[in-house]
Amino acid sequence: MRPAKPFAVTATAIALCLGAAASAQDMDEYIEMFDPLPALPPIPADGTMSAERIDLGRMLFFEPRISASGVISCATCHNPALGWTDRISRATGHDGQVGERNTPTVLNSGFLGSQFWDGREPDLEGQALGPIQAEIEMNMTLEQAIDRLNEFDVYREAFSAAFPDDSDPVNPPNVALAIAAFERTLNTPNSPFDRFLMGDEAAMTEQQQNGMRLFVDNGCVACHNGPNLSDSNFHHFELPGSTDAGRYLVTGDELDRSAFRTPTLRNVAVTYPYFNNGSVRELRDAVNLMGQQMLGHEFAEDELDDIVAFLESLTGEMPEVEVPALP
Amino acid sequence: MRPAKPFAVTATAIALCLGAAASAQDMDEYIEMFDPLPALPPIPADGTMSAERIDLGRMLFFEPRISASGVISCATCHNPALGWTDRISRATGHDGQVGERNTPTVLNSGFLGSQFWDGREPDLEGQALGPIQAEIEMNMTLEQAIDRLNEFDVYREAFSAAFPDDSDPVNPPNVALAIAAFERTLNTPNSPFDRFLMGDEAAMTEQQQNGMRLFVDNGCVACHNGPNLSDSNFHHFELPGSTDAGRYLVTGDELDRSAFRTPTLRNVAVTYPYFNNGSVRELRDAVNLMGQQMLGHEFAEDELDDIVAFLESLTGEMPEVEVPALP
Repeated sequence: MRPAKPFAVTATAIALCLGAAASAQDMDEYIEMFDPLPALPPIPADGTMSAERIDLGRMLFFEPRISASGVISCATCHNPALGWTDRISRATGHDGQVGERNTPTVLNSGFLGSQFWDGREPDLEGQALGPIQAEIEMNMTLEQAIDRLNEFDVYREAFSAAFPDDSDPVNPPNVALAIAAFERTLNTPNSPFDRFLMGDEAAMTEQQQNGMRLFVDNGCVACHNGPNLSDSNFHHFELPGSTDAGRYLVTGDELDRSAFRTPTLRNVAVTYPYFNNGSVRELRDAVNLMGQQMLGHEFAEDELDDIVAFLESLTGEMPEVEVPALP
Repeated sequence: MRPAKPFAVTATAIALCLGAAASAQDMDEYIEMFDPLPALPPIPADGTMSAERIDLGRMLFFEPRISASGVISCATCHNPALGWTDRISRATGHDGQVGERNTPTVLNSGFLGSQFWDGREPDLEGQALGPIQAEIEMNMTLEQAIDRLNEFDVYREAFSAAFPDDSDPVNPPNVALAIAAFERTLNTPNSPFDRFLMGDEAAMTEQQQNGMRLFVDNGCVACHNGPNLSDSNFHHFELPGSTDAGRYLVTGDELDRSAFRTPTLRNVAVTYPYFNNGSVRELRDAVNLMGQQMLGHEFAEDELDDIVAFLESLTGEMPEVEVPALP
């Protein structure tokens, strides 16, 4: 997929923007431009979300022994205490090595059309095995990880229960399927924004509603749309100080240089710091930079206040996840 | 406190051992040698266990940003998914550095008379600030840690609520008090063993009861006694391959060389691996080694089976702790 230029989006989105701008008084028209978050993202196939797979995926997500050090799990960087991310600039993994990019939250990630900042994997199954093997993250071969899991009766039984048709179920594709099944349960419905969209007029403050209008009228919605407020498309973005080639590293296409997949804005207030290298700590600064870079627009101070207030309304109900008892 | 030699314990304990051995048929005499785990350990002073302090302590326990890397919290090594320890041989911390010793579980640690393998701190308050500052663990100065906490309104408010009489409550002693308050809630009552002691004869299997008799008759109970099955005393122990001087590093007294505080046996089946350097993975091997080293006794195969079965009855109800939402 080619990176879209800002505003070079679908005709529908442009029509929506213009339509909304033309009748700014009518909140209903703004509301219609958004989608409340469903309870679950699209499910790839029948049987992929069995209770057994989700339970196994939860165990694997919290399992540090599938890292070389034995102390790093998915939950280390995707920490449930920190909005299922790490709230540091760039991911820190095996032996304290620091990666190039900011950790994206797992929350609502099943709604994204591709995974990782550069979209190099199409889905959560494709994503799940990456960090296990990355030398600067968990630093394991898949063979080593499978060997470790096979040491435990509890895991062998849990894989058999989750994949009853497999004769040898403890294998990498099933690790990915189980983790992805668990991750698809990590959604944050019922934010003030969602409740407002569904008819609760008191769910968003006047300032948040103003911010929502500004978000539409200034074109933020052109890329941040759909239930997860991401078009899952790639956009060129010159982050000051960043030399990350982004999507180019996947496609080799010069047009993709410094293009990144639009991140979700859901829970953006609790998933700081921002952008591909996490160099911006404050949400207000992030909005300001987006205005300058993507919209060619300098937001006024009160506009920034209102948009930030709107973005704060996107913080939903965190999933209630019990830390599993591992073997 | 000097290290006690095996069996060089109190006259009462010896009398109990001999008395029990003489009337092995009478389970009641065995039962009287043990104490069920109370719901809470001794509380140091009024007000130390307020709900506000416990809540703050829970936040701090899961807070990785009081580590230099930003990704290591108390819960990294004292992982709720892993019996509140890490289930690796030796603790692994900042930049993947590996320490000399095995991570003790936090569970029921408020019942211990001293903290750390060498007992260098008298209580949980004394323990709490150690790992934050240790270069191979979290690698922070306390000043840095306090600075990080002070960045957050939520923490400033939580410290004020927990320490309402302090004008400047975000300080290291209060960090220690809050973490210790939380840790004193991490107890595991109602194990099969406890239920058996309290009169539920079906709570322990016949084999577990046999193991309990062997545990008493062979003298294990001389050191592993009291509600946490530790006398909180120091005992010389020659672990094959270990060069750790143990308590000697604290006192400089040659008599303390290679002496370690008796570890709790509660939840021992889920807090492997064993001993000061975590070099023994299997509980059965640990029991065998204890027999040889501390009791001068070679347990028979069926005795090992029974004692391991008894030790498995010491796994209690894990505390239900919700991962906090951190700021």
